[in-house]
Amino acid sequence: MIGIGDDSAVFEATGNTIVAATDALVEGVHFRSDWSSPSDIGFKAVSVNVSDIAAMGARPKWLLLALCAPPETTDEVLRGLYEGIGEACVAYGTELVGGDTVRAPQLTLAVTAIGELEGQPVRRSGAEVGDVLAVTGPVGRAAVGVNLLLSQDAKDASPEDAIACMSAHRRPRARVDAGVQLQQVAAHAAIDLSDGLGPDARRMAEASRIGIEIDLGRVPVAPEAGRIATARGWDIERLVLGGGEDFELLVALPHEQLEGTDWIEIGRVVDDGLWLVRDGQSVPLPDEGYDHFRT
Amino acid sequence: MIGIGDDSAVFEATGNTIVAATDALVEGVHFRSDWSSPSDIGFKAVSVNVSDIAAMGARPKWLLLALCAPPETTDEVLRGLYEGIGEACVAYGTELVGGDTVRAPQLTLAVTAIGELEGQPVRRSGAEVGDVLAVTGPVGRAAVGVNLLLSQDAKDASPEDAIACMSAHRRPRARVDAGVQLQQVAAHAAIDLSDGLGPDARRMAEASRIGIEIDLGRVPVAPEAGRIATARGWDIERLVLGGGEDFELLVALPHEQLEGTDWIEIGRVVDDGLWLVRDGQSVPLPDEGYDHFRT
Repeated sequence: MIGIGDDSAVFEATGNTIVAATDALVEGVHFRSDWSSPSDIGFKAVSVNVSDIAAMGARPKWLLLALCAPPETTDEVLRGLYEGIGEACVAYGTELVGGDTVRAPQLTLAVTAIGELEGQPVRRSGAEVGDVLAVTGPVGRAAVGVNLLLSQDAKDASPEDAIACMSAHRRPRARVDAGVQLQQVAAHAAIDLSDGLGPDARRMAEASRIGIEIDLGRVPVAPEAGRIATARGWDIERLVLGGGEDFELLVALPHEQLEGTDWIEIGRVVDDGLWLVRDGQSVPLPDEGYDHFRT
Repeated sequence: MIGIGDDSAVFEATGNTIVAATDALVEGVHFRSDWSSPSDIGFKAVSVNVSDIAAMGARPKWLLLALCAPPETTDEVLRGLYEGIGEACVAYGTELVGGDTVRAPQLTLAVTAIGELEGQPVRRSGAEVGDVLAVTGPVGRAAVGVNLLLSQDAKDASPEDAIACMSAHRRPRARVDAGVQLQQVAAHAAIDLSDGLGPDARRMAEASRIGIEIDLGRVPVAPEAGRIATARGWDIERLVLGGGEDFELLVALPHEQLEGTDWIEIGRVVDDGLWLVRDGQSVPLPDEGYDHFRT
């Protein structure tokens, strides 16, 4: 392996099917330096990309970083960013093999994750009528975390709950393990929950040309997020559907395949339309988007 | 191949050795929108990355783009950027397989190029004492082009000369063909001339732990650049050594291997030190850097 310091990185894949994704985090848009430490930011930049690889049923292996930094960026901040990237590499079994640092007015981390796929890619477009819809874990933490940070006041929340939610925004964990499991259970379709359950379910439905019905009562709201939202009177439905940054996977698969997993069934694939079952009533899925840092 | 529209791109490599590079172009640092069209900017963002792949002796195949754009960016500009990327893909035989568009205060294109390597990587660090140093083509156009653009006045220059030089800055061509040839001639070391012959030769020398001697009289100054620099009284040596953005390759290889190429011998690898032969006198290589848009 040839890593940083030559014109390009060179590495050996074990197979021939390569998977790659790129995503940029921009200061003030995707993170705020007054909310997140440099290490958090570096970790998150890796997580969001590794999550895209996992959502294809592939395993992330190699990372490249194009770091755009204002000239006044201190060595301490740069060191922190790379520390966070290093911690993410340990967490995900990836390696930073290449990169570039350029001057820019705004701190921006554009990470590319490259991975390997054994088996078939799990696309957004493979959902079939009759599949169940499942999520790989609870949602809502990051959205509550952002709201807490915006309100600059966590007084009603237990410190543990507040920290869990703010950490979910600052330093999200990608579900690399669940990505590998997608292959094992031969899932039909998957997408990572970066923009919120509502918009991401909509994307899967559009790509697969099917309909989706989500049973709100079955959506696993993270307990910490639920407690804080209830105490504050925040609209849990809106946080869960439009919240974003959960980085769990939304999966469509035959019901019998769900059994070997600890994923949570939240709905099903139907012929047409986007539906939410709320208190036993089927209503059109609200068109909630997620705009970072705006409530 | 799965391209844009899923969580990740998926593609099939023919071999197992993968080469990857990432480089970001930032408005006001690497390009100016009043100098370069959106199509030029898109083309250049591909060229600088493809050049890094070529400099390893590898062939670029796949591209990903993280596009950071201010909200006020018009559809026309976005269309132009992608047009330029598309033109570069045709020129280089590459394919845009993935990407992401995010909101940002400054237009930034972070491209990742992924390629395949047949044979051994041609590293910066492989130069050996006794090798000749060669460049794959003439240098100096882009530096003169930037100077012309900065001076906002091309009155002494023929329109053809001025256009050739300004185009070299706006829409540089990477030497993908020469990159493949590096393999054929079993070159010992290579680096692409992105920052200037002086700094890039220095990098090769440091990586290879050898010395370098450049014969200034043999360095092929692009005729258009030479004519304009002479007419303006610009320091050709400085433009050539510190100019940057030529995107030719600097190659170290045994003399006999040079014969099958049209590369130009400009010096040799020596034991130690960085030397410039000027008017028959060997002097220390000036430590010229290249700062974009500053003369």
